[in-house]
Amino acid sequence: MKIESVDFFYLSMPQILDIGDGSQDALLVRVRGGGLEGWGECEASPLVSIASWVCPMSHSACKPVSASVIGQTLDSVADIRRIGDLVRAQSLDLLQADHTLSGIDIALWDLLGKKVHEPVWKLLGYSHSFAKQPYASVLFGDTPTETFEKAKRIAQAGFKAAKFGWGPFGASTPEADRDQLQAARQGLGNDGYLLVDAGTVWNTNLDAARRRLAYLKEVRAHWLEEPFVSGALTEYRQLSTESGSVGMAGGEGCHNYFMAKHMIDHAGLSFVQIDAGRIGGISVAKDVADYADQHQIKYVNHTFTSNLALSASLQPYAGLKDHLICEYPTELKSLAIEMTLNRIERDQHGMIAAPDAMGLGIEMDRAALQRYLVPVEIKIKNEVLYRTPEL
Amino acid sequence: MKIESVDFFYLSMPQILDIGDGSQDALLVRVRGGGLEGWGECEASPLVSIASWVCPMSHSACKPVSASVIGQTLDSVADIRRIGDLVRAQSLDLLQADHTLSGIDIALWDLLGKKVHEPVWKLLGYSHSFAKQPYASVLFGDTPTETFEKAKRIAQAGFKAAKFGWGPFGASTPEADRDQLQAARQGLGNDGYLLVDAGTVWNTNLDAARRRLAYLKEVRAHWLEEPFVSGALTEYRQLSTESGSVGMAGGEGCHNYFMAKHMIDHAGLSFVQIDAGRIGGISVAKDVADYADQHQIKYVNHTFTSNLALSASLQPYAGLKDHLICEYPTELKSLAIEMTLNRIERDQHGMIAAPDAMGLGIEMDRAALQRYLVPVEIKIKNEVLYRTPEL
Repeated sequence: MKIESVDFFYLSMPQILDIGDGSQDALLVRVRGGGLEGWGECEASPLVSIASWVCPMSHSACKPVSASVIGQTLDSVADIRRIGDLVRAQSLDLLQADHTLSGIDIALWDLLGKKVHEPVWKLLGYSHSFAKQPYASVLFGDTPTETFEKAKRIAQAGFKAAKFGWGPFGASTPEADRDQLQAARQGLGNDGYLLVDAGTVWNTNLDAARRRLAYLKEVRAHWLEEPFVSGALTEYRQLSTESGSVGMAGGEGCHNYFMAKHMIDHAGLSFVQIDAGRIGGISVAKDVADYADQHQIKYVNHTFTSNLALSASLQPYAGLKDHLICEYPTELKSLAIEMTLNRIERDQHGMIAAPDAMGLGIEMDRAALQRYLVPVEIKIKNEVLYRTPEL
Repeated sequence: MKIESVDFFYLSMPQILDIGDGSQDALLVRVRGGGLEGWGECEASPLVSIASWVCPMSHSACKPVSASVIGQTLDSVADIRRIGDLVRAQSLDLLQADHTLSGIDIALWDLLGKKVHEPVWKLLGYSHSFAKQPYASVLFGDTPTETFEKAKRIAQAGFKAAKFGWGPFGASTPEADRDQLQAARQGLGNDGYLLVDAGTVWNTNLDAARRRLAYLKEVRAHWLEEPFVSGALTEYRQLSTESGSVGMAGGEGCHNYFMAKHMIDHAGLSFVQIDAGRIGGISVAKDVADYADQHQIKYVNHTFTSNLALSASLQPYAGLKDHLICEYPTELKSLAIEMTLNRIERDQHGMIAAPDAMGLGIEMDRAALQRYLVPVEIKIKNEVLYRTPEL
């Protein structure tokens, strides 16, 4: 089939809060071809990704992403790969392109799955979608008491793993962080996996991270995520040699295969966390999963928005049985909840899995999308380059 | 002083050709404060960078670049660094941010230089702006004959170094490339530095690059630039072990400090080429120059647009005497030539240097800018978020 149309929809909560919650807006991509449609979602900054879809060409290696997608043939997995390669070559100098491609790639996999009546993970070559251990992914409370209450609710809801991140963590004293960590551990109970996300708060400051290591070990944190920005390979590696049982986790900032490869090769990671909505889609994420598996590093999905994004994030490692842990956002804003008609729920053992259904197995709720839709118009030389399409 | 306004201007040739010529459009930044103004230029895709300046916040780590710039204090070099750090922290999840910041950072250095009556290179801590050996930077001709003619004209114009890149090179047979290389060498004469830019044409294909090595050695190429995409560190390093006197050059694709550091650490480079309009501005480029110098790798500016961008690209290594070679675009489109009232010309020895003048030492030609100005309007929810400002 031919790719007949690609439409971008900017959705947003009525008000965006200045907190580390990525579920407050969304950029949806709808790809139509052969009487079917596939859906995908790009990670943050909808307007910028829309601009990179429609921008005028600057030169031969700086074309709008649309130039490499519209009118292309889509009949096989190889076609999705070819389209991704074309975008990377023709939009080489357009920084936002990987972001924009991510949502398109996800939608292409969804569309192809619907066409051939297979789940995406089967198209990726897996024979089984293994159950994953979901961790409830939440922000630290503003106070240790609030964090304790959150952790307790998570344990009561039957989660065996929880991740606390952002909020006040890392920004004041090591002792304040100790109190937060202890509160999380107490609320969660002794058995649960406690995961900690520093949200790049220490940038490249190795000593700042070091001062928290003893407290992290005390509460038996399973991993410390993003102590540093993604590029700080040397600092990551050094910290990993001192962190004992606390594994280094990182990678959500990677927006291409190479960045993830460099982290795997040089950062001393125990866990590589990949956002399919940012790294270039399911295709690139699968390549990273394969590379991580070959290098005895656990692949973990990164996702903080809708269940469409959650399904996309699970596909790349659905068939890797030993890569057990998965992120499962549990504090989503209403937009991210209402976007989809169905959701990926925990089974009786508290586990989740990439859906055994065509494509991504997620249906969009058009009425909900309409409620959150943000009308956008971009004009150049008084000609409309982009106007929010009909849903 | 306070940063009072930051204005973006999208300029373009009337027609953009599908060739590897980055001088066909431009995104200018004007920063005003304290009754003065500074100018900077971002690398390609003006519309996308404008969008990243004005986009609504997505969450706390995905804010528009403007949120970290407008109203800030600018009294010292430390202020410029602080603003850059703030942009990187608050726009962490906005891929285009480094690109947009680049032009702003350049304009801030220009503005600060004008305020304190010093050239930027002095503010960077250098006591002297050393003369650099400019290479004429041109595209390969469509045929070897055309390349020969170009090379001959370059030699006749007194250049002792020339770089040929893009065009048909690398895309067909090794023998076709041999003919191009021999034509370039013959036209240039025996003494000139011959530099070759493969423009990432082989992506990550080590063998494709290998098949050209003998021919590159035959014509005594001084460097082979971008045989691969920026992230292909392993392939770069392997090729460097086989390339003998032909040094590996790369780095223009780096859009932050870490990418350049990883190339220096792991890619076996002899030359690291940094575009101040892409890597985050003069500030980040200077950090890379320092790191390269410490690691016995030559720093080279990358620039392919106006003389404003050329001046910005020279500042970060103006005071590093041993880093001799510099890029000097000689096939600019009229836009890039006419944008500035003055230009950086070769002296009687054929050398160029970062200007000994306040700021970047380049004056913009407002009438010319007006001729190439592209009116842009971005609306969200029927409110104007961006409209091309008055020049």
